[in-house]
Amino acid sequence: MYRYRLIPVLIRKLTSHSPQILQTGGFGSYVFGMSSVIAKQSITAKDPWNIKDPALGWMIGFLFVVSFVGLFSVVPLRKIMIVKFRLIYPSGTATAHLINSFHTPQGARLAKKQVRTLGKFFSFSFLWGFFQWFFTAGDGCGFLNFPTLGLKAYENKFYFDFSATYVGVGMICPYLVNISLLVGAILSWGIMWPLIWDKRGSWYPAEEPQGSLSGLQGYRVFIGIAMILGDGLYNFFKVLGHTFIGLYRQVQASKLGLSVSGHHAANSSSLYDDQRRTEIFLKDQIPTWFAATGYITIAVVSIITIPHIFEQLEWYHILVLYVLAPTLAFCNAYGSGLTDWSLASTYGKLAIFTIGAWAGAGHGGVLAGLASCGVMMNIVSTASDLMQDFKTGYMTLASPRSMFISQIIGTAMGCVISPCVFWLFYKAFGDLGVPGSEYPAPYALIFRNMSILGVEGVSSLPKNCLTFCYVFFAAAIVINAVRDTVGEDIKKFIPIPMAMAIPFYIGGYFTIDMCIGSLILFIWRTINKEKADAFGPAVASGLICGDGIWTLPSSVLALAGVKPPICMKFLSRKTNSRVDTFLLGS
Amino acid sequence: MYRYRLIPVLIRKLTSHSPQILQTGGFGSYVFGMSSVIAKQSITAKDPWNIKDPALGWMIGFLFVVSFVGLFSVVPLRKIMIVKFRLIYPSGTATAHLINSFHTPQGARLAKKQVRTLGKFFSFSFLWGFFQWFFTAGDGCGFLNFPTLGLKAYENKFYFDFSATYVGVGMICPYLVNISLLVGAILSWGIMWPLIWDKRGSWYPAEEPQGSLSGLQGYRVFIGIAMILGDGLYNFFKVLGHTFIGLYRQVQASKLGLSVSGHHAANSSSLYDDQRRTEIFLKDQIPTWFAATGYITIAVVSIITIPHIFEQLEWYHILVLYVLAPTLAFCNAYGSGLTDWSLASTYGKLAIFTIGAWAGAGHGGVLAGLASCGVMMNIVSTASDLMQDFKTGYMTLASPRSMFISQIIGTAMGCVISPCVFWLFYKAFGDLGVPGSEYPAPYALIFRNMSILGVEGVSSLPKNCLTFCYVFFAAAIVINAVRDTVGEDIKKFIPIPMAMAIPFYIGGYFTIDMCIGSLILFIWRTINKEKADAFGPAVASGLICGDGIWTLPSSVLALAGVKPPICMKFLSRKTNSRVDTFLLGS
Repeated sequence: MYRYRLIPVLIRKLTSHSPQILQTGGFGSYVFGMSSVIAKQSITAKDPWNIKDPALGWMIGFLFVVSFVGLFSVVPLRKIMIVKFRLIYPSGTATAHLINSFHTPQGARLAKKQVRTLGKFFSFSFLWGFFQWFFTAGDGCGFLNFPTLGLKAYENKFYFDFSATYVGVGMICPYLVNISLLVGAILSWGIMWPLIWDKRGSWYPAEEPQGSLSGLQGYRVFIGIAMILGDGLYNFFKVLGHTFIGLYRQVQASKLGLSVSGHHAANSSSLYDDQRRTEIFLKDQIPTWFAATGYITIAVVSIITIPHIFEQLEWYHILVLYVLAPTLAFCNAYGSGLTDWSLASTYGKLAIFTIGAWAGAGHGGVLAGLASCGVMMNIVSTASDLMQDFKTGYMTLASPRSMFISQIIGTAMGCVISPCVFWLFYKAFGDLGVPGSEYPAPYALIFRNMSILGVEGVSSLPKNCLTFCYVFFAAAIVINAVRDTVGEDIKKFIPIPMAMAIPFYIGGYFTIDMCIGSLILFIWRTINKEKADAFGPAVASGLICGDGIWTLPSSVLALAGVKPPICMKFLSRKTNSRVDTFLLGS
Repeated sequence: MYRYRLIPVLIRKLTSHSPQILQTGGFGSYVFGMSSVIAKQSITAKDPWNIKDPALGWMIGFLFVVSFVGLFSVVPLRKIMIVKFRLIYPSGTATAHLINSFHTPQGARLAKKQVRTLGKFFSFSFLWGFFQWFFTAGDGCGFLNFPTLGLKAYENKFYFDFSATYVGVGMICPYLVNISLLVGAILSWGIMWPLIWDKRGSWYPAEEPQGSLSGLQGYRVFIGIAMILGDGLYNFFKVLGHTFIGLYRQVQASKLGLSVSGHHAANSSSLYDDQRRTEIFLKDQIPTWFAATGYITIAVVSIITIPHIFEQLEWYHILVLYVLAPTLAFCNAYGSGLTDWSLASTYGKLAIFTIGAWAGAGHGGVLAGLASCGVMMNIVSTASDLMQDFKTGYMTLASPRSMFISQIIGTAMGCVISPCVFWLFYKAFGDLGVPGSEYPAPYALIFRNMSILGVEGVSSLPKNCLTFCYVFFAAAIVINAVRDTVGEDIKKFIPIPMAMAIPFYIGGYFTIDMCIGSLILFIWRTINKEKADAFGPAVASGLICGDGIWTLPSSVLALAGVKPPICMKFLSRKTNSRVDTFLLGS
């Protein structure tokens, strides 16, 4: 038994590969979106009431009051997500396999072989990441933009992007999750978005810029989030009901083996292993009263302090945010447990739209929207990140309490270090965030524009968007209810709404990766079921962690200013002949 | 035993993937190079004495007198190359595996498994070819131009080009051949050519166009051919000596097992199989007197008729060509047996330089050079092609006589069909061969320019080129002599000069493919020697034939005017940002 280890958390931080990590930091998005540099680039809302330039003091203070609350909100969820729902948390599971591989029991032949397999695929995945790097000299370059299924499909975000991570994640996730993702991708990017695109000029202005929530992007974000909320709330209330009943019966132990959502365990560890894990996981409890007290304390501190940092936010805005946040944190933790995707920025957009509109344009609603976006993103992303860590801890027999403590230390360090790094850049490069400079901040402008739109409220959404949202919200609840009433044999053919909704905004490319992972595992199991079950998780973990670790040297290269030498570009035949003519002529 | 089958020859024709196939046809190169369309694009030699426009009559006649002679020259070599030297002929071997797979003996479990493996890799290779096609919308596009080892290495033709064929060929060829190729590639493209390139302006005019034999290309072609001739002549005379001795001793049977060149058999067929093959192969002999009579008859006919077709050629030019041709045919058959590459166009260039210079500028030397190039290329390429077929026949127990007959039929058909197809194009497209039109003929112009250069003889070669040729010619003989004197244990570390010389002109990319094939086989043999030996040839054959068969639908697509939709382009970072700016601006 390994207790009080910081390693699991550190390793997962290193190997985490979530594309959102850049956004949840927030400095490139909502924080910088408040600054005068970005405000100058917008059309409206340039009054000083809607501008707040970065300063070291308020940034550190804001992060401190906002970052810890997520930690407390997630503690009570931990048992539900990991022991009861048996959610996969693919990155967390992969990291656990990696860590366990360092501690193979002596003499266990199978375990040794698994470790060797993990090592092989870890190296392969790392080298593959390294190889890919050389061909990414510019935007749209490299294997990540390989139009594997053709240019038309690529435009609609259907392509295999050669990501070792998501192939690995696909191997860890149950077939049903991957198929649900694919169904969702086809439904949204294959059918709905092209059809809505044809309505441009009628449902929404045709000249709306890409990424504007008043255009096609609005449907993508809000229909997706409606479906996620539908699924999340259904499960939230289901759990709440179960908890109240269970609280009285005190029959926890007998119910541990029950899988409410029907997602089976990913790894083939024996029943004994699982019982042992559950035992250790639950033994070292963090009391619920402690979590509740912590949450409420921080909430109160926030309600008092944040309106002082952002005068545009009233105390009741913060109160509402903190009342709703645990539910959304539940949704995000649930979604990332199923599919490995944390949709923190999507929940952030929701906050922009609700709080921004509530504050109103006249009262600095733009800034209020951005600030509440920060609050929401921090809570929601901490919830999913921490749950991944708990999964790792669960599988490596680490004590949840020690993990919780290490998380607190890590978060506190982050609250100081991140603003300092940003501050350094901000002062060193006078033109930070200016388009065309070395460090432009496209996301900051997008977030600010969203907030400007947000203060107008629901009316700024494109036509029929809200109707769609209601339909998909209801559909998510209905599908879940059906899934819970039918038998196991039918249930395994009904897609999971939460998984379906993830690609609505992101696109289909990672679902293709994941389905390829599923396909590999399926073929492997057909050929040799025993071997596939024994080595599948090792292969998947190697693929995920190798690619994840590669991000470390790649960041070092980027910081050292070493740029990749080659661009692998994909052009249509017509564009290519134009480019050839251009290159010949010059 | 399958006798009198045409199938082997047909299948090999379909699966043959030699890049020279386009050039040996000759219509895109030397034949069209004689025309007035191409002459107009050159600077000099525009007098009618140096021009001969295509006409159906002389083209068919010329092909008839020239094409059959290669068939007869190769017959006596057949026993030496296949039974005595045990040369590999990778394409021929692969085709034989494919054909044998259709005739698996009932009940042979291993054979059935081998067939299944072959089928799997055949499909993979075919689909891989198909997938690659989509990304080749323009020149320099697609996986064939993937700068796997960086752009600098790509410029010097060092890259892995994802060719399933050459990976398969590398798996069939002995390690020593592949390593020799790599050593040759490093020596030439890695060291010598860059050093000679630095001498531009001093050894040869710096502004010499790419591909001119007066520039760097001259060194590549002539140093390479000097080394090939050195090795080829050494082995030719060695065989001649052995033959004379053997003729008197009549101890053929006892010498069959002896491997003169030390190349071991590629496939792991048992000794019984091989004895049986040799027996059938030799039983159904084509008598040497028949081959000799055929060769002399055709030579006499050619000597009489060709000077009537091309008045610029004298009868003694043809005589010399026909005296030298069998030796060069031997060299080419030997080289392609080792490495699968037929260097027919290189021997053609040699003919341009010798006969063209001999005829002289004043007497239509340009045309004489092109015509003798045609004679030489036909003889030499037939020799290597036919030997590949004989290898297939040997391994499939086909009768050499039936193969010989089917070759005669096939050649006769080709002599009529090819000129007719060319004629059709020539008449249908008035601008055939004009630069910028739909069907330009870049090779035709290159060949004509080479011939214009050729009439100036040795003096037109760049500085020190001839000295290099002497050195490499001598080196090839010395290395061979050393190889024949030392013991087997040292011999296997001395590279084969013939193999070393092949990449001198072509470049290193296919040697990388082949070495990867070797590496795969080596790793496989380390893990499981038995399985690798049993299934290696099946995998290799699948890879080679699948890719080869893909050329058939790809030609159909090309003829139907279906062009690939995407270009996968590789640009340096600098060029890429220029292209991005260009694309944004337009």
